[in-house]
Amino acid sequence: MFHGVVPPLCTPLTEDGEVDTASLERLTGFLLDAGVHGLFVGGSTGEIAQLTDAARDTALRTVVATAAGQVPVLAGAIDTGTRRVLEHARRAQASGADAVVVTAPFYVGVAEAEVRAHYELLHAALELPVVAYDIPANVGYKLPSALLGELAQAKVIAAVKDSSGDLEGFQRVLDGAAGSGAGCLTGSETLADLAMARGADGIVPGLGNVDPHGYVRLYEAARAGDFAAARAEQRRLTALFAVIEVADRGRVGRMSGALGAFKAALAARGVIRHAYTQAPLLPLTDAESRAVAELLAAAGLGAVE
Amino acid sequence: MFHGVVPPLCTPLTEDGEVDTASLERLTGFLLDAGVHGLFVGGSTGEIAQLTDAARDTALRTVVATAAGQVPVLAGAIDTGTRRVLEHARRAQASGADAVVVTAPFYVGVAEAEVRAHYELLHAALELPVVAYDIPANVGYKLPSALLGELAQAKVIAAVKDSSGDLEGFQRVLDGAAGSGAGCLTGSETLADLAMARGADGIVPGLGNVDPHGYVRLYEAARAGDFAAARAEQRRLTALFAVIEVADRGRVGRMSGALGAFKAALAARGVIRHAYTQAPLLPLTDAESRAVAELLAAAGLGAVE
Amino acid sequence: MFHGVVPPLCTPLTEDGEVDTASLERLTGFLLDAGVHGLFVGGSTGEIAQLTDAARDTALRTVVATAAGQVPVLAGAIDTGTRRVLEHARRAQASGADAVVVTAPFYVGVAEAEVRAHYELLHAALELPVVAYDIPANVGYKLPSALLGELAQAKVIAAVKDSSGDLEGFQRVLDGAAGSGAGCLTGSETLADLAMARGADGIVPGLGNVDPHGYVRLYEAARAGDFAAARAEQRRLTALFAVIEVADRGRVGRMSGALGAFKAALAARGVIRHAYTQAPLLPLTDAESRAVAELLAAAGLGAVE
Amino acid sequence: MFHGVVPPLCTPLTEDGEVDTASLERLTGFLLDAGVHGLFVGGSTGEIAQLTDAARDTALRTVVATAAGQVPVLAGAIDTGTRRVLEHARRAQASGADAVVVTAPFYVGVAEAEVRAHYELLHAALELPVVAYDIPANVGYKLPSALLGELAQAKVIAAVKDSSGDLEGFQRVLDGAAGSGAGCLTGSETLADLAMARGADGIVPGLGNVDPHGYVRLYEAARAGDFAAARAEQRRLTALFAVIEVADRGRVGRMSGALGAFKAALAARGVIRHAYTQAPLLPLTDAESRAVAELLAAAGLGAVE
Repeated sequence: MFHGVVPPLCTPLTEDGEVDTASLERLTGFLLDAGVHGLFVGGSTGEIAQLTDAARDTALRTVVATAAGQVPVLAGAIDTGTRRVLEHARRAQASGADAVVVTAPFYVGVAEAEVRAHYELLHAALELPVVAYDIPANVGYKLPSALLGELAQAKVIAAVKDSSGDLEGFQRVLDGAAGSGAGCLTGSETLADLAMARGADGIVPGLGNVDPHGYVRLYEAARAGDFAAARAEQRRLTALFAVIEVADRGRVGRMSGALGAFKAALAARGVIRHAYTQAPLLPLTDAESRAVAELLAAAGLGAVE
Repeated sequence: MFHGVVPPLCTPLTEDGEVDTASLERLTGFLLDAGVHGLFVGGSTGEIAQLTDAARDTALRTVVATAAGQVPVLAGAIDTGTRRVLEHARRAQASGADAVVVTAPFYVGVAEAEVRAHYELLHAALELPVVAYDIPANVGYKLPSALLGELAQAKVIAAVKDSSGDLEGFQRVLDGAAGSGAGCLTGSETLADLAMARGADGIVPGLGNVDPHGYVRLYEAARAGDFAAARAEQRRLTALFAVIEVADRGRVGRMSGALGAFKAALAARGVIRHAYTQAPLLPLTDAESRAVAELLAAAGLGAVE
Repeated sequence: MFHGVVPPLCTPLTEDGEVDTASLERLTGFLLDAGVHGLFVGGSTGEIAQLTDAARDTALRTVVATAAGQVPVLAGAIDTGTRRVLEHARRAQASGADAVVVTAPFYVGVAEAEVRAHYELLHAALELPVVAYDIPANVGYKLPSALLGELAQAKVIAAVKDSSGDLEGFQRVLDGAAGSGAGCLTGSETLADLAMARGADGIVPGLGNVDPHGYVRLYEAARAGDFAAARAEQRRLTALFAVIEVADRGRVGRMSGALGAFKAALAARGVIRHAYTQAPLLPLTDAESRAVAELLAAAGLGAVE
Repeated sequence: MFHGVVPPLCTPLTEDGEVDTASLERLTGFLLDAGVHGLFVGGSTGEIAQLTDAARDTALRTVVATAAGQVPVLAGAIDTGTRRVLEHARRAQASGADAVVVTAPFYVGVAEAEVRAHYELLHAALELPVVAYDIPANVGYKLPSALLGELAQAKVIAAVKDSSGDLEGFQRVLDGAAGSGAGCLTGSETLADLAMARGADGIVPGLGNVDPHGYVRLYEAARAGDFAAARAEQRRLTALFAVIEVADRGRVGRMSGALGAFKAALAARGVIRHAYTQAPLLPLTDAESRAVAELLAAAGLGAVE
């Protein structure tokens, strides 16, 4: 289930901050038409941190209904503690998700034994497979590579999504999980070709909302062993990834600017109606949106008919 | 409303992880008898990150009912984004809280303009006063002192709880908020006398669960200008604060060990029935609990009749 | 030997980057006239990181000659490894220093056992007393409070200079070193009154170059138990310390801006001839220097006759 | 000049901590026999932070004499400030180095404009080419990719050695320096194949002391476009790199353990006589050295005849 290009979907919003389900359906269709292999709803890119539980449910149900079983739908169950995650995961299951994606506990720092217990408790309590999500920039903690390998071998986790940017650690995860059947996915937009060369099973790129065709080409090239083609595609996508730097919000606001830029790009391509972000995230200004449009043009991306 | 000793209450649990309301009532009574000036439910110490929404509500209602208006009850509305915080805050208001305590957004890093918008939106939407909670160790972001001063002067926030450990910054907050009427509370267990000397309005000490009488004495001494007495009390409390080091859980698990230790101490003193922590947090081992009991004895703290 | 106000002297420079010995003599005299209790040559404030060995020697000899035994002269022996520090320390001894000030090894991170060995080897090889200098912002490592206490009790170190900004840790150092005879000095410009209230033996303030009289008054008030007077002086000095923010060089360039500001202030007060900084450090611009002059005026500091 | 495998040489020591020149000659010969393309003396791996100036000179002269012009010899000129670096660089030139390797200023944090000035001043003052060395773990500052590109285009720097572990940034350096003629070298032991795939000109691996043949094979395979062979070699070398974890010295002491392990491995292979490290760095224990020997055996590395 855990392979290929699995974009973490943006959550389009109406002017009053509700989920724009029509736009979300179009985005889902756009991604499916591009040939993605899975859909991840409720990731950081999907503004899960800003959405209410009700909005999370609406987004997930919309995507599940639109995907209609064509590809697996992964749902983020991102919260600070085990019981809270468990509640989210059960709601996701009820909404039709095929797997849940779970970070380490956060807000209160915990020891490694407690992180292990977190995943073991979730695995024991849930019927859905659990994907471990390593995103130290958001969580303030790097999931130890050795722990991920052990959890994979014990079938506690069914996959890993590595958004740490640390390819050395990802290699250790690949080695540790080898033979377990667990999928190893990279969350990197710009090192995806290299992660594939090292043996990744798939890619979960936020930029994949904007250019899913590019990531599908990259993935297929790498699968076919044509790393030169994968690298060429990667270069084009890396240049496009400069959209996340358009809104200069400083070191701490980097991800906020990225989320706004993905939405501005999707609106510019005509996939979603508005580029609104969920408060307190600021959308891009008009000038910033024009800069995004220029980067789209440079990458050869136009309006989607 | 925002002055004096305002302990962030532990949340006692039953063996199956539910809120032990009888123990929570006893803890509330114990703190009120000691003369605390407010009660803070749903802080980090209260394991808010581990409690479900239902458990948060139960804890808050229990304390509100027990306090019965004797002192203000502050409720943590701790979550990753503005809309989510708003929902928690409205539930807290419905449960009888007198104010809500709110951190900067977390999980997705945001720019300062977005942090400002977060507090402004909450203030505009809520009837309850908002307390800004600066806890960079948990949130990964330090609320800028200048921003806090501006929000205080604009009456957007009614108080600040500073758990940053940075007295220089706290001084800037005090200066920036001067004349605004906003209360400036320190969250430090071990620098409380110094924060009072600099002009703090109050103290929010996790250790205040265990020894509320000590912090009330420290506070009263400092208010009376007797800083030598405040310092002597502080020294005793600082020695007692070694309970948080008893469970060695490494750098990242430091707070987990502290929460377990406070509960072990409360159980040893007979205030709460069990020292269970909410999963995935590990409680202290028996040996660790004995070490806590020794530190209690050294601090002159026995069983509460 | 290790008590009172011990300013870390700026190193005035000529236009071509050589030590301006005439200005350094004036600065030394200015500090002695203000009643300081010691002089620290070759600290971070003295641009030791930018000075050649020859310039370091010149600066130290100039100060030793000018002080002429009136107060002790401490010399920084700041380098990355033990043998390198040892060579600096021997040169300092030959130049007439009364003690050497030594950080943890840096550049290559080392384990605590290696830090301990560093100080033990230096103590065994040197006749001069060794002052442990805790400055994690520069060294990337915080000297453990317990280690400092042990080294003090073992007479391996004769004093501690704490520039960590962490008063909790400083309290642990004070407790750990109690009875050893080791001096405990704070390097904080803005928490000096509080450090004194906790039992510090002295203060090593970079801002003491600019306003030594203020720090001497603060110190004397605190020694006399008049913490209200100490705090009032501290407030004035804290306002003056805003000079370090005048040159906005971002998070990483903060200390560079502070060094330039101290020199601009000394030049404005007529103590030193030029405000040049050692390359690659940039001096303040004219506009920034005017802002410094305004802060001087606000603090009641004029030209020194 | 800046391409291929350029190991940062360990500095073998005698029991009393002097440079063991006979062993250093053997190490140099061992590396040359393996076909390395350059030699880097005085890097972190060479314990430059622990060596006196005299020992640095001895090591450099020994290597220059042994290499006898067969390959370029790069010399670290690692120090905290520009003038200090300049002195080291001039000594290195006098000792016969072909280029100097220079980090950002450290100990005192500086702004980007000051880092730029640092390299510009050195370039203007030196005849030798300057290699910019990006090693944020040691220096506490990451050289901005854009700055490196600009310095390369301006011929201020002749090469970059990237030991940041950040392949995204390295890609930006490669792009920024494209066409400038500047060499782009990776310092990664474990991502070398990927860096080569992205266009690196060479590799500067500490582990290259121990297995230079392996890195030469990896490099040659990658140059020939045989990335599968490069990756297979990389996998073997990555397994061998576990030697750096044998001595568990915690997070901060990681590099100290690595340096000891490389020396233990070289001693086990019979290349150098002793595995002593320079104080305060601790050598490996006997048990740790045996673990290193086992990893050597697993990697198929025996004694060098």
